Amino acid sequence: MRITVLAGGVGASRFLRGLQAAAPDAEITVVGNTGDDITLHGLRVCPDLDTVMYTLGGGINESQGWGRTGETFSIRDELAAYAAGPDWFTLGDRDFATHIVRTQLLNDGHPLSAVTEVLCQRWQPGVRLLPMSDDQIETHVLIDEGDGRRYVHFQEWWVRMHAAVPAQTIVAAGAGEARPAPGVLEAIADADVVLFPPSNPVVSVGTILAVPGIREAVAAKTTVAVSPIIGGAPVRGMADACLTAIGVETSAVAVGAHYGAGLINGWLVDDQDKEAATDPALAGIEVRVLPLYMRDLAATAEIARAALDLAAELSS
Amino acid sequence: MRITVLAGGVGASRFLRGLQAAAPDAEITVVGNTGDDITLHGLRVCPDLDTVMYTLGGGINESQGWGRTGETFSIRDELAAYAAGPDWFTLGDRDFATHIVRTQLLNDGHPLSAVTEVLCQRWQPGVRLLPMSDDQIETHVLIDEGDGRRYVHFQEWWVRMHAAVPAQTIVAAGAGEARPAPGVLEAIADADVVLFPPSNPVVSVGTILAVPGIREAVAAKTTVAVSPIIGGAPVRGMADACLTAIGVETSAVAVGAHYGAGLINGWLVDDQDKEAATDPALAGIEVRVLPLYMRDLAATAEIARAALDLAAELSS
Repeated sequence: MRITVLAGGVGASRFLRGLQAAAPDAEITVVGNTGDDITLHGLRVCPDLDTVMYTLGGGINESQGWGRTGETFSIRDELAAYAAGPDWFTLGDRDFATHIVRTQLLNDGHPLSAVTEVLCQRWQPGVRLLPMSDDQIETHVLIDEGDGRRYVHFQEWWVRMHAAVPAQTIVAAGAGEARPAPGVLEAIADADVVLFPPSNPVVSVGTILAVPGIREAVAAKTTVAVSPIIGGAPVRGMADACLTAIGVETSAVAVGAHYGAGLINGWLVDDQDKEAATDPALAGIEVRVLPLYMRDLAATAEIARAALDLAAELSS
Repeated sequence: MRITVLAGGVGASRFLRGLQAAAPDAEITVVGNTGDDITLHGLRVCPDLDTVMYTLGGGINESQGWGRTGETFSIRDELAAYAAGPDWFTLGDRDFATHIVRTQLLNDGHPLSAVTEVLCQRWQPGVRLLPMSDDQIETHVLIDEGDGRRYVHFQEWWVRMHAAVPAQTIVAAGAGEARPAPGVLEAIADADVVLFPPSNPVVSVGTILAVPGIREAVAAKTTVAVSPIIGGAPVRGMADACLTAIGVETSAVAVGAHYGAGLINGWLVDDQDKEAATDPALAGIEVRVLPLYMRDLAATAEIARAALDLAAELSS
């Protein structure tokens, strides 16, 4: 079976572990969000790709969900001593090594997809990990801290400001002219099922869908999505702040309807949101109700299995 | 008093500490060798400048003489896991931070002299540290390992091969078209005395002198040099391999004569080399015999004091 997954970072990585457990023989392609990518200290950082790679490759800091296990922070301390660059985005030494290798390969002219393949040769994540695009796309957020409106990089809003300043607009800068990375459209077209993990529907899945051609390719397939909203709140992170910015309510129903019957065919919601099953806003989408907290690998595999079962049912 | 010092790495840094102790009120300008500089993992590494900066700024690994104290090696281990780049030049995490800051500033368009000034704002070495040039000069070594002659970067010959393969030629690639960094010629012209520490006469002091204009500027001044050769052997490092490559014997007399009376006025040699005082090869150079091992700060300050005393005598 061929499965293609549109993935953000932490939530997607946990879901992918469950998916690997539920479908050990499947060929899984992960199309990773690169809208969160940022150049820090002259090095290119791809938080979502790395979180998938580290998680599935066994290098993740498990309790934190991102970053490396056994991490040291000498460089962070040194950069602070030099008063060099932003201090609100902490990178560990082990993580820095990944960005050093990536940046050198990029500067040598290799596209991000090729660089990601090189990095994955070490990590062996057990999936094919593709960036959504080799073209630079960066999510920027329009804010007003009281001294006029300005755009900031998504990471500055998310990490430095903890998304506490309301986002007036969220844009995927560069997406309009970007092309999907080599293999992305084929991986979607050739998939038996396309899955959306419980990733941020705006700045993760939404950004991937903003790359011209990807939305249409997904719409042509049997697609099942897992709600990242349970009981009116994001399971993790501050997706509510992103949803508010695009005028979507933070509810399982509203996010399912935002994706829409033209894009997704199946929608998994948590027991807390069982009324979604009969909500007219989700007409045309098959809704399944089940426990959606990814408490452990077994629970996560159950969710993945339900998504695959629903996809099989919808395809038959 | 104004003192200008042409400096390599470890030996020069130790001498400079002694000089600061011997002449606490002097304005010291250090013209640092950049011929050892190398780009590793996409980052610009300046070993000699950093050794001076770390030593005088209190960050050096004292027992080793180079690199940072309290160092960690996460990045080295990670790069090995990625099989990325040369593994024969070990950089610690703290040291990497310096190269990250330097590379970002260079890539932003700042010349090395300005970048060095920024780095020294943190380290406060108590001297003005200038690279010999803002233009890229790299020492390359012609070798033959039995499969034909080829040039390798000085660091590959020095660090990877431990200079065990004979050097057929040593060239300062780029020196011919280089210009001294801003302030270098002025610092030499305005100095009351120019000193050569016991640095490598070929790939440290020799490379600095290869930058057009510097040799002539030094020749016009009262210059006192400290022999890096004691009893027919280098005190530290493999200067003998470099001297052999340029056809100079590894002796205090031969190195003094290699600098020559047209360049230096005074020459400090160790007690073991007292016969140099009357060697006709050193005609025109005032030779002083004294203990030259830099065993501790007090002994090193004595050497620096002897150099300054000789310079005062020669200038009067």
